[in-house]
Parts: sequence; structure tokens; C-alpha cells
Amino acid sequence: MNQLLDNLCIVMVETSHPGNIGSAARAMKTMGINDLRLSSPRKPYSQETWALASGANAIVEQAKIVPDLPAAIADCQYVIGASARSERTLQWPQMDSRECGICVAERLPLQKVALVFGRERTGLTNEELEHCNALVHIPMAFDYMSLNIAMAIQVLSYECATAVRLATPAEAATTDPDEVLASAEAMEGFYTHLEQSMIDARFLDPENPRLLMRRMRRLFGRAEVTVSEMNILRGMLAAFAGRKFHRRSSTD
Amino acid sequence: MNQLLDNLCIVMVETSHPGNIGSAARAMKTMGINDLRLSSPRKPYSQETWALASGANAIVEQAKIVPDLPAAIADCQYVIGASARSERTLQWPQMDSRECGICVAERLPLQKVALVFGRERTGLTNEELEHCNALVHIPMAFDYMSLNIAMAIQVLSYECATAVRLATPAEAATTDPDEVLASAEAMEGFYTHLEQSMIDARFLDPENPRLLMRRMRRLFGRAEVTVSEMNILRGMLAAFAGRKFHRRSSTD
Repeated sequence: MNQLLDNLCIVMVETSHPGNIGSAARAMKTMGINDLRLSSPRKPYSQETWALASGANAIVEQAKIVPDLPAAIADCQYVIGASARSERTLQWPQMDSRECGICVAERLPLQKVALVFGRERTGLTNEELEHCNALVHIPMAFDYMSLNIAMAIQVLSYECATAVRLATPAEAATTDPDEVLASAEAMEGFYTHLEQSMIDARFLDPENPRLLMRRMRRLFGRAEVTVSEMNILRGMLAAFAGRKFHRRSSTD
Repeated sequence: MNQLLDNLCIVMVETSHPGNIGSAARAMKTMGINDLRLSSPRKPYSQETWALASGANAIVEQAKIVPDLPAAIADCQYVIGASARSERTLQWPQMDSRECGICVAERLPLQKVALVFGRERTGLTNEELEHCNALVHIPMAFDYMSLNIAMAIQVLSYECATAVRLATPAEAATTDPDEVLASAEAMEGFYTHLEQSMIDARFLDPENPRLLMRRMRRLFGRAEVTVSEMNILRGMLAAFAGRKFHRRSSTD
């Protein structure tokens, strides 16, 4: 079993059917992935959960149960949301399942990565999508777009495990702690700060926020902000809030 | 949907659980595969069959039920048996799931291909293996070797559909003018604006600029900023400076 996969976690958001959690655990275990996180599952584990887990009970027993997505991904540096391709998701960076496996295999030596799966019927909300750096879809026959959630977890776990297996040993990458990507929690702190700054500057009207913050999340999510860059951005926002603008030029 | 996949059929041999037939049909349908053949299923369809087929009922209704494997594969030119790797299978030509997809994609334009799945607990008999041209196994974490049969059908259907898709030319992508990347000129305008804003806010000392702007160039360069995002960033800087925000044209 490849230890790199210990850096990959699966997040299930508000899963309705306890059986799906069992099937997902089994799917993960076949592929050597063990870290399952459940954001507000709708029902407690049932007999079906354990029957379908079928040997992957330990994954269910050790699954972390958290109230919401941000709590689930707080320690992750890269978050990939599973989503059907649709109008509302077109603006996020997209990958298909094959690309996702390759992307994950490249990141795991350095980063903690989360694969996030939404509700059985309705998927992820727009707000949840905003916590994702990228979206992955599993290409399907165009006239039929419903892959069972455990099946989707099986396919993506399989792609990640396959890509890790096929990957040649990676070259030594930077170990500079400043060049590590900021965690999801740090990014949330930044977004809160940015939003408040835009409100204070009257650039963002809280009564009519439009899509401003979503656009900013998309932009910075794509950029993959490092710890040191995060420090600069936070410092810059604090300086802007000082509002003591001393322009040197006479054009003011 | 790719018509080549019409030349691929899935054969399930002596399946015990009627629910697995439903799940398998759904898995096939998501991937655009429609031809299911059942060799002596152990029990008649149940409520679970239809519940799990979930929209793929037609595949179950049209599934051909035959007495044995030879009858199931009579019209096929190439037969691939799904099997865990083991001592007894070592003498057959082996492929892993990725290689199987590629093999199937190469054959479908010319041949009718069958993917054969054995009993839930015991797989295929030696006699059945002899009807196969090759065997396929799905690589798994070494300490856990039990993939549910419908999951195995999902993974192999996915590999075949993916290989067929990758072998056919992709369509051209559409582009929204706002989603076009900002020009290098526009990026330079932004960097000048950002630098001046940081100087005004006394965050950047022009006498000792350190690497601040270089870091910001690296960050935003990586993000690949679009025209519409550029408008937001410029507007935000203007607002931070206490100026009125005039939306810039996309040619800026």
C-alpha cells in the first residue's frame, strides 16, 4: 500500500443514506485510502452501513464527523469538489477524473488533499463549491448523468491510486516551510479579512454582494497561495485599512 | 454517447444477489454501455434490482438470460475475464484495468468484445477462464482484495469508456469574452496600480522594495487572471484608495 495515499482524505457532505457511507468506506479501502470525513451526515450509521462496509469497518469507525465543510478540510492544502459539469460550475477550474488522479498524485508528496462529495441528490451548494480549488467530473454518457455516490468515490479513488502507482518517484521538492501552501483554514481567514476590507472601502455592499467574493475565491483558489504570500496579502490589507494614504505625486 | 460502445457487452455469471444486477446496470448506463448478459443468475430480479438500477431499467429488461458462458459470448470476437491475480490464473494473458480499457478501445471498431464477471464469492471457474482470451485485474491495496462486483463493473466500464473517448477527437471549447485571460499589457497596468497602492499605504517602501512585487507577480501570474477578474481587482484597489470606482473597459 502506498503511504502517499495517507495524505488523501475523502469528505462526504450531508450524506442521506447510511448505506452509502459503508459502500464508500469499502471503495476507499480497496484502493488504500483510509481517511474519511463526514460533514453532518443526515442519519446515524445503520446495519446497512456495516454490511456494505464489509471489512472496511475501521474506516467508518475512525471517520471524523464534523459540522460543515470548512471544518472537514481545515488542515488540507488543496480541495477538489466532485460535481457534474453544469452552467453554475463552468467558471471553476475543471478537471476530469483522469486529470484529477494525476493532479492528486503530483500533490500528495507535499500537500494534504481532500476529495469532496456532495449530497446524493443535490451535490454541493454554491457556497461549498467556493471552498474548492478545483472541480472534478467523471465523464459520462451524455444522456444519463447519475453516478451513485459510492460509485463516484470508487472511480475517483481508483484514479488517484492508479496515478500514484504509475507515478515515477518524484524529485525532491522544496521543503521551505514558507513555500508550503496555505491551509484551507488560513484561506478562510484571508477571505474574511478581504471581504471586510472591501465592505469598509465601500467596494462591496453587504446588502448586494453580487458575486464579488465568489470571484475572489475562484481567483485565489486557482493561484494556490503559499504561506509567505498569505502573509503579504494579509499585511497589505491591514496597510490599506490604515487609510493613511500619503501620495507622493502632485497629481492627487 | 459513443456508438463504438455498442460493440461491448458485460456478462455476469451466476450472480447471487439480484441487487448487484441492478447496480451493474446503472454503472453500465453511466458509461454508455447497454448490452448486459446474464448467465444462469441464481435468483429472479427483486425489488432491490429495480431500486438499484435507478433509471437503467431498460438495460435489465433487455438483458439476455442464457444458461452458460459459451452461450453468453457466442457472438463475441474477444473475451476478457475479470479475475483477481492468483496462481491459477498466471498462465493466461494478463492485463490491468488501464490496459484493458486501451485494449477494448482498439478492438471495438472491428470486434465485438465481452467483459465477463464471475460469481460474487468464487469468481470464474477454470473451465470458464478457458473461454477467455485474456484476464483483467483491477490493481488494489495489497491487504484488501475484495471489490464488490458492481464496483468492479463500474471501474472497468469507466476504463473502457475513457479509452474510447480519448481515442476520439475532442470538441472545440467555447469561450466567453469575459473569461478570456487579461493581456500582458493589462497585467502590467494592474501591477503598476498595485505597486502604487502599496506605496501609498506605506506597505511598500520604494527605497527598499524587497521582493514584494516579484512575489505578487508570481502569485497573480500563476492565477491566470481573466478580464472580468482584472476589472474587480482594479476596482478594489481604487476603492481602497478612497476613490470612486469607474468600471474599466475590457480593453484596458
